[in-house]
Amino acid sequence: MLIEFTKMQGLGNDFIVIDAVNQAVELTPEQIRFLADRHFGVGCDQLLMVEKPVSNNADFKYRIFNADGGEVAQCGNGARCFARFVRDKKLSHKDQIIVDTDAGQLLLRFDGEESITVNMGVPRHAPEQIPLLMDAEALEYSVALGAEKIEFYAVSMGNPHAVIRVQDIDTASLETLGPQLESHKIFPQRVNVGFMQILSRKQINLRVYERGAAETLACGSGACAAVVAGIEQNLLDNIVRVNLPGGELTIEWLGRGHPVFMSGPAVSVYEGQIQL
Amino acid sequence: MLIEFTKMQGLGNDFIVIDAVNQAVELTPEQIRFLADRHFGVGCDQLLMVEKPVSNNADFKYRIFNADGGEVAQCGNGARCFARFVRDKKLSHKDQIIVDTDAGQLLLRFDGEESITVNMGVPRHAPEQIPLLMDAEALEYSVALGAEKIEFYAVSMGNPHAVIRVQDIDTASLETLGPQLESHKIFPQRVNVGFMQILSRKQINLRVYERGAAETLACGSGACAAVVAGIEQNLLDNIVRVNLPGGELTIEWLGRGHPVFMSGPAVSVYEGQIQL
Repeated sequence: MLIEFTKMQGLGNDFIVIDAVNQAVELTPEQIRFLADRHFGVGCDQLLMVEKPVSNNADFKYRIFNADGGEVAQCGNGARCFARFVRDKKLSHKDQIIVDTDAGQLLLRFDGEESITVNMGVPRHAPEQIPLLMDAEALEYSVALGAEKIEFYAVSMGNPHAVIRVQDIDTASLETLGPQLESHKIFPQRVNVGFMQILSRKQINLRVYERGAAETLACGSGACAAVVAGIEQNLLDNIVRVNLPGGELTIEWLGRGHPVFMSGPAVSVYEGQIQL
Repeated sequence: MLIEFTKMQGLGNDFIVIDAVNQAVELTPEQIRFLADRHFGVGCDQLLMVEKPVSNNADFKYRIFNADGGEVAQCGNGARCFARFVRDKKLSHKDQIIVDTDAGQLLLRFDGEESITVNMGVPRHAPEQIPLLMDAEALEYSVALGAEKIEFYAVSMGNPHAVIRVQDIDTASLETLGPQLESHKIFPQRVNVGFMQILSRKQINLRVYERGAAETLACGSGACAAVVAGIEQNLLDNIVRVNLPGGELTIEWLGRGHPVFMSGPAVSVYEGQIQL
């Protein structure tokens, strides 16, 4: 079959986006691994499928596949690219769209041409919702990693996040602590690990070791998790600029019970056609 | 400008190929760096331009740009993709084509649908032709790298190559010796460094640390250089199968004064259109 796709990126987090509403597309994990391969295929961090909605109130279903072929529930940079795609392709003319995901519904909003805001949903703090094997909810958890004792904040943004506060993002031990905490037994579904340097109450630096993907240029849900951590610990205001290796995001959160809003760019890089 | 391109690969060495005969395309180094970027652009090891020939007897000019935007003279896997491209795009119906390159002319030949043979030209052995700062030509040179003394063979395939014989390709110190020899002062234009494990007189394993690109999946001219080294040292026959991380090539050489023939696959992966 010949598949039409668009290559997109949000802060360097890059995606193959496929319209599966107007094209009959069903991909096997092997085909996704091939498409994601940067030398033998097209190359991407994730593959996004635009499908018909499953709920009555939704406009589309948003499906996300990792480069290893596995399906995941959440990707914030992908959500912005998804929104840009359905608008550029004229699949929807609305200023706000609702999409079904495996982690619930997402609301996507256009703020002029440059920026797109994603309602990333209400963060969940209870250990069993993350999931995190701890008896009681806390603002800071601690765990032994080898000889070191690490303190971290934990939250679910539809996917599990741990946030470690560091003095300097450039010297943080991301390469060692990231994979150790990612696959620690207290996180039965593994975890994304963020390393946050607080610059002021309005600005942080962040690097994220993503579950199943190592360090990435910019993890959208990781930026939300870090800002939620900082606000909960009373170190940040309600609107925070997050500097990631791939660029900047703005995160807004009013506190418990409220959804997190993430704003940032989404870029269409090129159009492609591939025979599978 | 809107540019049409084809993404191709030969043994996982991947290329953006652009028809600059029928499209008016002139790219700046900055645009090439953008196109080659795997997250923000299209992504490739090299960008190949199909241009009008400069010589009367040639069919095309073959220009090669590295991901850093610099122009280079030679790429064997690229030459096979170049040949497949001009045939698939019906730019030429000949079974053999002659292309101008900055390192002289190349002859490209189709062997059925699967394999393409490239006449990689006559290897040059004199130190000043490589260039290598040694007084006399030898079958083996030696140099001190830190505490180690390394023996290597050197040859030009249009670009400079050093070949180091190792017992086991998997445990070879490519990551340390590669960059050290690549930028050693005896190679004023730097050098590509091949690590060759001889399996029999008809078969070798090879890994190559490419000048300006680190280890790659398959270096075509490096495969030629390694087989020339082995034949000159009377360790290999005239037709040799070369196992590279990205796949297999067949190299044929009759000895001094003869050109080296390289045969292998070239695959069109997808078609793309990008606005620059």
